[in-house]
Amino acid sequence: MMQIKITNGENLPNIPWQEKPEGLTGAPVWRYTENPVIKRNPVEGVARIFNSAVVPYEGAFIGVFRGEQVNGIPYIYLGRSENGIDWTFDKEKIHFVNEKGEEFEPVYAYDPRLVKIEDVYYIIWCGDFYGASIGLAKTTDFKTFTRLENPFIPFNRNAVLFPRKMNGNFVMMSRPSDSGHTPFGDIFLSESPDMVYWGKHRHVMGKGNEWWDAVKIGGGSAPIETSEGWLLFFHGVTGTCNGLVYSIGGAILDVDNPSIVKYRCENFLLTPQEWYEERGFVGNVCFPCATLQDSDTGRIAIYYGAADTYVAMAFTKVDEVVDYIKTHSKLTESDIELGIR
Amino acid sequence: MMQIKITNGENLPNIPWQEKPEGLTGAPVWRYTENPVIKRNPVEGVARIFNSAVVPYEGAFIGVFRGEQVNGIPYIYLGRSENGIDWTFDKEKIHFVNEKGEEFEPVYAYDPRLVKIEDVYYIIWCGDFYGASIGLAKTTDFKTFTRLENPFIPFNRNAVLFPRKMNGNFVMMSRPSDSGHTPFGDIFLSESPDMVYWGKHRHVMGKGNEWWDAVKIGGGSAPIETSEGWLLFFHGVTGTCNGLVYSIGGAILDVDNPSIVKYRCENFLLTPQEWYEERGFVGNVCFPCATLQDSDTGRIAIYYGAADTYVAMAFTKVDEVVDYIKTHSKLTESDIELGIR
Repeated sequence: MMQIKITNGENLPNIPWQEKPEGLTGAPVWRYTENPVIKRNPVEGVARIFNSAVVPYEGAFIGVFRGEQVNGIPYIYLGRSENGIDWTFDKEKIHFVNEKGEEFEPVYAYDPRLVKIEDVYYIIWCGDFYGASIGLAKTTDFKTFTRLENPFIPFNRNAVLFPRKMNGNFVMMSRPSDSGHTPFGDIFLSESPDMVYWGKHRHVMGKGNEWWDAVKIGGGSAPIETSEGWLLFFHGVTGTCNGLVYSIGGAILDVDNPSIVKYRCENFLLTPQEWYEERGFVGNVCFPCATLQDSDTGRIAIYYGAADTYVAMAFTKVDEVVDYIKTHSKLTESDIELGIR
Repeated sequence: MMQIKITNGENLPNIPWQEKPEGLTGAPVWRYTENPVIKRNPVEGVARIFNSAVVPYEGAFIGVFRGEQVNGIPYIYLGRSENGIDWTFDKEKIHFVNEKGEEFEPVYAYDPRLVKIEDVYYIIWCGDFYGASIGLAKTTDFKTFTRLENPFIPFNRNAVLFPRKMNGNFVMMSRPSDSGHTPFGDIFLSESPDMVYWGKHRHVMGKGNEWWDAVKIGGGSAPIETSEGWLLFFHGVTGTCNGLVYSIGGAILDVDNPSIVKYRCENFLLTPQEWYEERGFVGNVCFPCATLQDSDTGRIAIYYGAADTYVAMAFTKVDEVVDYIKTHSKLTESDIELGIR
C-alpha cells in the first residue's frame, strides 16, 4: 500500500477511536460498537438528533446538531463533549443574528455542517429562503452566531465548505434540488472571495451509474486534504418500491481543481444494516455530516445520521479507505471533466 | 390620470406602433393587427422562432432569437430589422467564445433576453449546465459574443437583467425551477459587482393567488424605469386538465429596492385568444421577452412568443398600463417584504 497521509497537519490525539474488528469484509469502514451515540429524546422538547456536525474545540469537542423538536420543526442545537462520544446539549436552540447584531432566526434549519476556516467556524444548513436553500453563519466563540448572506437562490441542500481557501476564494459544495423529495441530484461547487457573492460554479460529479447512488448524491462531511487529493465522504441514494435508501460513498477530488474527480468508489462504504440505520423516523438512512481526523495516525472518525433518528459513528484509516476508493474507482466523463458548460 | 412617465430618458421616435383600437375592453394592451410578425420556417433549418428579444441599434433594430432547429434543439440566432416588425435572420446561429476567445458553444440555448447596460449588450438565456440554468454573454458589436461565468447553479430559467446598475451592482432576476416542466416558481433577484460572483439574493414575488398565475411566474422583458417604479411585464402560468396556459402580467417594483413589489395587477394584461397564441407547437402561450419604449410619447411595444411557434407584438402606453396595474393591484405579504429570510 502506498504511503497515503492526511496533509492538513492537524493532530488530534484524543480522537474517538476503536480499532478495526477482526473479520471485517468489504470497505474498510467499521461502526462504533456502542452505536448510536445520540439516542431518542436527547433533550427536553427534542424528539431526535441526527445529521449533525462536530469539530475539535479547546481540547474537547463541540458541534451543531439537527434537533427535531416535538412539533416536528428542525432547528440547530449546540452540543459539547469531552470525548466526542458522550454529548450534552444546550436546551435552547442556537440563536442567530444578522450582521447588525439584530435577531435573525431561520424559519427552520436542518442538516448543519460545521467547518473551520482560518480561525472562524462556519455553520451551513438547509433553511427556508422562500423554498429550501442554504443558510450560512459564522462564529468564533460559539456564543454569537452571525448569519451571512444566503449564498444561493433555492432550491438547494447539502452544502459543505472546504476547510481552506483555494486561489484566495472560499469554496462550497452544494446539491441543487427541487422543492420536494428531489428525484435527482448532482454535486456542484462554487467560489466566493467574500462569502457574499458566489460564482465560478462547476459541476463536480453526478448521480452514479451504480445502483446504490443512482437517484442522487450529496456532499457529506467537509473534505479531508490528503496526499492523494480531497477525500470526500458523501451520501448516495437509491430508490426502491418502498422509498429511498441512503448510503455513504467515497471519492477523491483533485487537490487544486476539486471539480475534477480523480477516484470515485463504485461501491458504497457503508449502507444501512444495523437496527438504528434501518428503523426510525426515516428508515434506511446513513447520512454523513462530519469527520474528525488525526494527521499523525491517519485515523478518521465519521459522524453520520442514522434513520433520521440517531447520530452514529464509524471509523476508518486514511490509507485504507483511500486505497479502497482507488482500487474500486470507476469514473464517468462528467466526473473527470472540469465541470463547466 | 396621473402624469406617469418613462424615466430612462431614451427616445425612440421610430418605435413600431399602432394606436389603440376602438372598443378595447380590459387591460390597455392591444395586439398588432398583422400578428404574428415572425412566421413558421423563418430561415433554412429553423422550424420556428419565438420567445425572443430585441433592442434599438444604430438607428434600426437588432435582436437575439430563439430558433428551434429542425432537429428540435434550440439555439440563438441574430436578426435585424429596419422597422422592428420585418426581420431578417443570419443563417448561422450565434457563435460564442470564452474570455480567452476560444470557441465555447452552449449545449443548447433558449428564451434569450437582450439588455444594454452602459454600452454593453448582455444576452441571457436558458442553457444546459448539467441541468437547465442561466447562460450569459456580452457583445458590443454583435459580431463577437463572449460568454461570462454562469451566474447560478441549476435549476433556473427566465433570467432578466435590469437595464442599469443599482448601488454599483448589476441586478438580475431569475426564476428557480426544477429539472422538468416545473410545477412551481417565484421570481428572485441577485446582485453582482462584476458579473462573475452573484449574491445578496432576494425574493421578489411568488406565484399568484389569482388563478391565471397560480402555478408559477417568471420575469419577461427587462424592467422599464418609470416615475412609479420599475414596470415589469412577466409571464404567469395556470394549470388545466390539458396543460399549462401562459399569460402576460404586469407589476411595478420599487425603484431603489426592486425586491419590493409596489403594485401587482391581479388581472392578466394579455392571455391567449388569437389563433397564433392558441395553436402551435405549445398552444396557449403568450411569453413576453422584450419591449421597446419611447420616453417622449410613453409608447411601449411588447415582443412576445406565441404558442412556442411565432413572435407577436402588442402595444401599450406607459401611463395607461401603469394606471391599470395600480388600479387593479392586489399584494401579498411576500410581494411587499424585502425578500430575505
